[in-house]
Amino acid sequence: MEKIEHIGIAVKDLEKSNKLFAALFGETHYKTEEVASEGVKTSFFKKGPNKIELLQATNPKSPIARFIDKKGEGIHHIAFAVKDIKTEITRLKKEGFTVLNEIPKKGADNKLVAFLHPKTTNGVLIELCQEIE
Amino acid sequence: MEKIEHIGIAVKDLEKSNKLFAALFGETHYKTEEVASEGVKTSFFKKGPNKIELLQATNPKSPIARFIDKKGEGIHHIAFAVKDIKTEITRLKKEGFTVLNEIPKKGADNKLVAFLHPKTTNGVLIELCQEIE
Repeated sequence: MEKIEHIGIAVKDLEKSNKLFAALFGETHYKTEEVASEGVKTSFFKKGPNKIELLQATNPKSPIARFIDKKGEGIHHIAFAVKDIKTEITRLKKEGFTVLNEIPKKGADNKLVAFLHPKTTNGVLIELCQEIE
Repeated sequence: MEKIEHIGIAVKDLEKSNKLFAALFGETHYKTEEVASEGVKTSFFKKGPNKIELLQATNPKSPIARFIDKKGEGIHHIAFAVKDIKTEITRLKKEGFTVLNEIPKKGADNKLVAFLHPKTTNGVLIELCQEIE
């Protein structure tokens, strides 16, 4: 794991939250993107070397909708940049972590992503992400 | 706000979690610190330009104990580095955010800190922190 690539925050209303985080950071988001396969609309803010990703569900079965139903709006995951996601998945499995999807899938922002089960990581949903070349 | 200074994670057993995060990151924490006024023991991991702070309560009235009682272990706050915490508090109050402590207090890691109420920030507890010179 190289560094925190982004922090994902689950929100109910992306447009409203874009304004809120723009007021918080003193600058607006620089892009939006829909990931149909995950049932989310996202927006990205840049903060120094990291990004903040806001996520709004586009359907009630989306993981973000289920998260908000259970816990309310808030921090959803931390994503760490990795150089080689397959090597990292193998390493983490050996260390005893549960990888939710052992075959990396296409996420937002041109990334291959995999998630670790929060039960094995102190309640923190961790995303591994590798830039697609 | 300059950048994410650290992410704070509430844990039940610091020693156990230190081992877990060392396995996750492939490197151990570089320091521990107790903040008696906040009722917490902390440990710090470095990940590229950011830090991860693990927090364990040292008494049942600690904010970390109350957080874990309510939500379980997990991400507790995001801390943003600021150059001048008083100026930033004034700016954020004008923007409509609720500052939990308007007078910055001494936190871990040689910082002056102030928190924004999660009700005004999409459920995210945000810490502002300024290095004490």
